[in-house]
Amino acid sequence: MLKTDQIYHFASEFQLETGGILPGFQLKYTTLGHLNKDRNNVVWICHALTGSADFTDWWNGFLSEDTPFDPRDYFIICANTLGGCYGSTGPLSLNPKTGKPYYHTFPEITNRDVVRSFDLLRQHLGIDKIHTLLGGSLGGQQVLEWAILQPNVFERIIPIATNALHSPWGIALNEAQRMAIAADATWKQDDARAGAEGMKAARAIGMISFRTYETFQQTQAEKTANKTDDYRAASYQRYQGQKLANRFNAFSYWVLTKAMDSHHVGRNRSGVEAALKEIKAKTLVIGIDTDLLFPLREQEFLAEHIPGASLAVLTSLHGHDGFLVEFDQFKKSVRNFLKAEVRKESLV
Amino acid sequence: MLKTDQIYHFASEFQLETGGILPGFQLKYTTLGHLNKDRNNVVWICHALTGSADFTDWWNGFLSEDTPFDPRDYFIICANTLGGCYGSTGPLSLNPKTGKPYYHTFPEITNRDVVRSFDLLRQHLGIDKIHTLLGGSLGGQQVLEWAILQPNVFERIIPIATNALHSPWGIALNEAQRMAIAADATWKQDDARAGAEGMKAARAIGMISFRTYETFQQTQAEKTANKTDDYRAASYQRYQGQKLANRFNAFSYWVLTKAMDSHHVGRNRSGVEAALKEIKAKTLVIGIDTDLLFPLREQEFLAEHIPGASLAVLTSLHGHDGFLVEFDQFKKSVRNFLKAEVRKESLV
Repeated sequence: MLKTDQIYHFASEFQLETGGILPGFQLKYTTLGHLNKDRNNVVWICHALTGSADFTDWWNGFLSEDTPFDPRDYFIICANTLGGCYGSTGPLSLNPKTGKPYYHTFPEITNRDVVRSFDLLRQHLGIDKIHTLLGGSLGGQQVLEWAILQPNVFERIIPIATNALHSPWGIALNEAQRMAIAADATWKQDDARAGAEGMKAARAIGMISFRTYETFQQTQAEKTANKTDDYRAASYQRYQGQKLANRFNAFSYWVLTKAMDSHHVGRNRSGVEAALKEIKAKTLVIGIDTDLLFPLREQEFLAEHIPGASLAVLTSLHGHDGFLVEFDQFKKSVRNFLKAEVRKESLV
Repeated sequence: MLKTDQIYHFASEFQLETGGILPGFQLKYTTLGHLNKDRNNVVWICHALTGSADFTDWWNGFLSEDTPFDPRDYFIICANTLGGCYGSTGPLSLNPKTGKPYYHTFPEITNRDVVRSFDLLRQHLGIDKIHTLLGGSLGGQQVLEWAILQPNVFERIIPIATNALHSPWGIALNEAQRMAIAADATWKQDDARAGAEGMKAARAIGMISFRTYETFQQTQAEKTANKTDDYRAASYQRYQGQKLANRFNAFSYWVLTKAMDSHHVGRNRSGVEAALKEIKAKTLVIGIDTDLLFPLREQEFLAEHIPGASLAVLTSLHGHDGFLVEFDQFKKSVRNFLKAEVRKESLV
């Protein structure tokens, strides 16, 4: 199966929603499969907070052969988000105006900026219609923003474990994580590793919000009653922190959690409900019954206000991370969504 | 109403469960009301993680006139925990052997050590029987340990929003908080303010575990759709962090979260269930339906295994903090508990 990694360069000034300007940017994107002659088999993925364009790395169980989006039939594409650190322009990129990395001078970006950059890539690739746009968490927020920005481009969207606006609860969680980064005095430095210790703690906080009591009970319970320190759950948290520190940086973490915080599809529009009504794509909203970070009521709200949307609820012990775990339920929901529609069309 | 603040000095070596030794200690304790002639009206309170002996400061709504434990009828006492920083021996106390504060050399303590120190104070005060022992969270863990250690002393116990052993989930949460403290490079210093920035982040993490999505929704939602930064939920987290930093220190925070982690009533006994069966006190277990940190299943487990225990479930939007909020339900449950027993006795 043909997989490519490419870079799209946008060489003009890019005006950001909150007033900043990027003097050009690049997006790294991964594609799998072939664009067909009718150019109507495009599936576009938006990744989550610390993800990369290479969805075969983190979502292989869902986007491989014999899945609903079999790459033998579809042309699947995912671009690393602006502000990320997997090849797209982010805080560690060189600012062409200074010849040095942006670091703390990287401007504030919003999900609206991100999807505008994706849309430039889409136009550059000559893609007029997208068969399905899907993504979870931060990626799901981008799915919604993009479907509102370009209602005629998307035939179907699947926003997963996400929301119309980020909640005070979600913002409080992100702020705790940024406080941990800021507590690391190296965070003030202009250095790629600045704030790395703080980011480890931030990740440990994140793990709590991505999982559930039951996940930890099942995977990190002790085998003996007779210890008083060095618990498995504690080691696991340090391990997860270190694992992220090996592949990510605190600048991107900061910028992208801020983009998550400012997610609000109703901003400078006529409110959240009106914005969701702009969506013309056939919509399957997916939620997870145990999601602490994006609780089910948020997906119920989306399904209620996006015209004609249906809602699938995944049952999982694993909370928010369920969308990276419950592949069977996930595939079944998506298959039903795609089939129901075919049936409906064949009745006309 | 007579309120006193006093200090109990224990001048001998105090051997700790995990091998450390304190060359003596002191406990600061607050009392309210009068010990009656029969010495049978003692209500003993164990406070939560960052609490003080002065329960009139943080639990006034529950322990004042016309409440189930009206201080006109009861002699109410609460001692600051060993390892704390409100007058009892803790990491900021002077080590008599060096003449300097313990700081990082303060030994590891467990809830068993804490209740053994409380029990020495009890004996010093000449109290043979305690009418009711109660406390929530870390304090509830101490209630259970003490009731197992001295089954003949306590006539009634009320463990609230607590557990028989700390969960992998709770340990993961505490570890994230300690990681935030350790990410603050000042934490290495021998200074009372060491790790203070990290502790602010730790507290922000704690706030998440003490509350719920709904609490933040109700109190920190934005009034406008058109902002992209400076959210109320984020300011609130920084405010809570600063508020704790003004009154607490990272050393006590570290030591006491470790004591919470190592809580396990079955350690070096014949298991958790057997340990709970040692309890002879009449027991009312109280849980909160939305508690994320000590979920209801933990109190159900306690009620199932403590002989004759009953369970009261408080309904709250506020999660773990519900036990500091839902006074009316709380007082009602306690009144019923005390009444039911009177009724039972009068039937004999």
